[in-house]
Amino acid sequence: MPRRSAVDALETRSEIVQRAMELASLDGLEGVTVGRLATTMGMSKAGVIGHFGSKERLQLAAVQRAAEVFAREVWQPAAGLEPGLERLLAVCDAWVDHVVRSPYPGGCFWTAASSEFDGRAGEVRDAVLAAMRGWDEILIADVRAATTAGELAPETDPRQVVFELRGVTMGLNQAAQLYADPRGRARGRRALRRVLGVVEAPARA
Amino acid sequence: MPRRSAVDALETRSEIVQRAMELASLDGLEGVTVGRLATTMGMSKAGVIGHFGSKERLQLAAVQRAAEVFAREVWQPAAGLEPGLERLLAVCDAWVDHVVRSPYPGGCFWTAASSEFDGRAGEVRDAVLAAMRGWDEILIADVRAATTAGELAPETDPRQVVFELRGVTMGLNQAAQLYADPRGRARGRRALRRVLGVVEAPARA
Repeated sequence: MPRRSAVDALETRSEIVQRAMELASLDGLEGVTVGRLATTMGMSKAGVIGHFGSKERLQLAAVQRAAEVFAREVWQPAAGLEPGLERLLAVCDAWVDHVVRSPYPGGCFWTAASSEFDGRAGEVRDAVLAAMRGWDEILIADVRAATTAGELAPETDPRQVVFELRGVTMGLNQAAQLYADPRGRARGRRALRRVLGVVEAPARA
Repeated sequence: MPRRSAVDALETRSEIVQRAMELASLDGLEGVTVGRLATTMGMSKAGVIGHFGSKERLQLAAVQRAAEVFAREVWQPAAGLEPGLERLLAVCDAWVDHVVRSPYPGGCFWTAASSEFDGRAGEVRDAVLAAMRGWDEILIADVRAATTAGELAPETDPRQVVFELRGVTMGLNQAAQLYADPRGRARGRRALRRVLGVVEAPARA
């Protein structure tokens, strides 16, 4: 019976983290209160917090899980491709779909967490930034591979490309969530391809 | 004396709205509680809410004021220029400066408000979206003028351009606030110029 209890505890903990991510996408990580989680889980507050120790640990668990979800949906389907432009394009398409068909009710977890924590110090901000920098480095490596292979221009600045890819995906989340723009997905795909030089700049003759 | 009191009341109301915008940029519009405002203003809660009637009215006043600040900093300096590419570039440069040297302690009010309210219904969301659509229409008119003047390619899609400009400025706010990237301003200017076709796509040979 102890083993079964340990499995139950892990499953309960996992469910709490899932609910926390969903609530965070709607109302921010600070809006994820132990009281709300307890209500939605049908648990006591002490029962919820007992799995983590503190609200901050719970928030950190949600950030960690969101990073795993992102990796599974955006990176892993393309990870087996050769490094370079083909893989970048596959990743960009998956990123667009991840944002538009968000696994969270309130849209992109990272845009919300970034906006919420960018003015604060602490472990949650550090964890959000570390996860985002990790993704940046993966993208930068593929931009470099594409440049070395001659698929991108020699003067390509990988960090500029990543800056622009991030901007497009944030704008896409806004178009999908705030504007409810049915053309958001097509606009996002086009914008990402333009950043990568695969389609002409729309403003150039 | 009644006239003096009326002026005082307007000034106090204006100061409350200013504090509300500052708090909102750090902790979101929902984080702007009457209690916090009362504490920072050295007023009673009843005194604060008496100027507005409800928290929602106070939030709406903050959105309205933020729109005025944006117009003053980003639109008005360029408004006297001829419609077209020159004015678009002047507006984009002012937009970059507005985001990087934000008048709010927590960075871009609109990115924060958009992220916070995109999953909610109600008057505040409607006001945020209406203000943003108003800005979109101003940009679209200048993209059309630039296209008519032959400064942008005939096939330019104004809404695609605005989608991309918005994405860059959101990414810029993230770079400035979360990443504290000292190159954010230069990256933002370059990205906006690329959207407008004034510099080559970084990834094209």
